[in-house]
Amino acid sequence: MSTTEGPADGSPAVPGTEPGTGNGRDAIVRAARRAFTLKPYAEVTMRGIAAAAGVSPSLIVKRFGSKEALFNTVADFGAAADELFAAPPERLGRHLVLTMAELRDRHGGDPLLRVVFSLGIEDERTLLRARFREQVTGRLAGALSGPDAGLRAELIAGQLLGLGATLSLHRPDGASSRASAERLADLYAPGLQRLVDGG
Amino acid sequence: MSTTEGPADGSPAVPGTEPGTGNGRDAIVRAARRAFTLKPYAEVTMRGIAAAAGVSPSLIVKRFGSKEALFNTVADFGAAADELFAAPPERLGRHLVLTMAELRDRHGGDPLLRVVFSLGIEDERTLLRARFREQVTGRLAGALSGPDAGLRAELIAGQLLGLGATLSLHRPDGASSRASAERLADLYAPGLQRLVDGG
Repeated sequence: MSTTEGPADGSPAVPGTEPGTGNGRDAIVRAARRAFTLKPYAEVTMRGIAAAAGVSPSLIVKRFGSKEALFNTVADFGAAADELFAAPPERLGRHLVLTMAELRDRHGGDPLLRVVFSLGIEDERTLLRARFREQVTGRLAGALSGPDAGLRAELIAGQLLGLGATLSLHRPDGASSRASAERLADLYAPGLQRLVDGG
Repeated sequence: MSTTEGPADGSPAVPGTEPGTGNGRDAIVRAARRAFTLKPYAEVTMRGIAAAAGVSPSLIVKRFGSKEALFNTVADFGAAADELFAAPPERLGRHLVLTMAELRDRHGGDPLLRVVFSLGIEDERTLLRARFREQVTGRLAGALSGPDAGLRAELIAGQLLGLGATLSLHRPDGASSRASAERLADLYAPGLQRLVDGG
């Protein structure tokens, strides 16, 4: 979840967003996915999503209902997981760190951290937990060999969430903000790789 | 931050809370600290805190103002840091994991994770970030020797936040929920210890 990037007012001036392009459901989903990725949940507004999608706020309400419902519709970790897990086990640790850094740069926000924010809201928590378990933890557990694969997958997921959390919390002037992705991987990947290898 | 424990309605039926004991500012702070520790931010209510403190909601508003202001008043990581960092460097990794598990059990919620939730709210983010940096990351950096102490401290803080996040996300039936604290430490402490030792 982005913490400092992007406009604070939910305006459409979001990198990669072209106001007015597309219309209807697909445009809303694209705009909402960007908004929820770029900004903390509390700062995303239906009005901002509507402006970015080139539709009226009332159309979003009509098609999706509440902001929570829209969030649940667009929340999906599958694409991030495709990239995060695209390496053989023997070098997955380093790949995970470098890919996290790359995804955060590309999207201007964290690819996974929004699931932590969802803990505060009952409906989202339930749905996002289920998706995160299936698309991240469960998929990872299935790719690991050795004992306690499920537990190790949960701890790997925790280290990924923690990496995003600390990078966001210590922005913009923390040591981790100034470190290169390679240096982050030098320090952070060994713990991940150990969990991949078997703990 | 607790995700499944405690009442969902902000009622005073929180373990360790005795409704009506004490009064005035101290009672409000005690009740608010428990509430914000036991439950996600969005589920904490001024009414629930007031009931737990044995005061009227209007008194809390009069003394503290908004819910955000009250949260900022009671948010403090110093006590948790005292316990988390109470071990010599050579065995700090394992101590951190066992203490995290112990603090989560004792308080019915995570001792650090609320700082991640605060990312969604501008005022809290600013104040909580400052406190977290000072009381957790900064203190830890000062206790580490070797190169990149600040960066390593941020990454250690990340692994601690990630541990809490994954334990909360995979409750109540995940593998990490069923694992003993000792088993969690067996798997999770080596990565932390490596960062403590120098990466």
